Amino acid sequence: MSSPSATPNTYPYQNEPTWSKSEKAIARTAFDAALKREFHQVIQEAKQKASQIKEPEDLWDLEHYLTERRKEIDRKYDYRYSQLTQVFGRLLHEGRLSEEELRGLRDDKLKSIRSFAELFAKYAA
Amino acid sequence: MSSPSATPNTYPYQNEPTWSKSEKAIARTAFDAALKREFHQVIQEAKQKASQIKEPEDLWDLEHYLTERRKEIDRKYDYRYSQLTQVFGRLLHEGRLSEEELRGLRDDKLKSIRSFAELFAKYAA
Repeated sequence: MSSPSATPNTYPYQNEPTWSKSEKAIARTAFDAALKREFHQVIQEAKQKASQIKEPEDLWDLEHYLTERRKEIDRKYDYRYSQLTQVFGRLLHEGRLSEEELRGLRDDKLKSIRSFAELFAKYAA
Repeated sequence: MSSPSATPNTYPYQNEPTWSKSEKAIARTAFDAALKREFHQVIQEAKQKASQIKEPEDLWDLEHYLTERRKEIDRKYDYRYSQLTQVFGRLLHEGRLSEEELRGLRDDKLKSIRSFAELFAKYAA
């Protein structure tokens, strides 16, 4: 959907925060929980849409819906440590994750995650 | 799915039967009835599949199923008069159309349709 970023790549990872072992465990649990909730939501919506199919066009609407959800989930759930604060920021903004679930991450990460959440709130459609 | 035909094209339409006005009406009715039944079947199957979704993979299985059905229907229901005897032959073979529904077509067309139905019976998976 979005066009490629116009910002030139900085040297990779130069400002990337390190993740301790305990932080990695917290991140993985939070990430998996959000993904699970998102899948649950898509499954419920797909069942609902399917139950309401009446016309052939409704079939292809469902197909399109599933394709878009699959692509969106693929893009959104990027578990690279270089991307995680942004990913968590988006999930926080979308209400798919609570700050509570991120407790135990270092303050600089939480601050970064909140900044991304605010950015998403500002620019999201 | 199938590879392009190895048979060289003959000059288009040189042996194409003409369709009278009444034959066109019969063909359109039969074609639309078969398509409607096929859509009905896909709708029922899609609803059934959706109702059984448990895991995320099931979502993408449903997406794939819908994509394949859409492509197959697009390929199969080709209402060009140059293609109709073959199309009806296939629909007859698949049990989506009865000979009864083709009554009123000229004998040469019915013969051609039956030949295609036999061909499909012989070579279909």
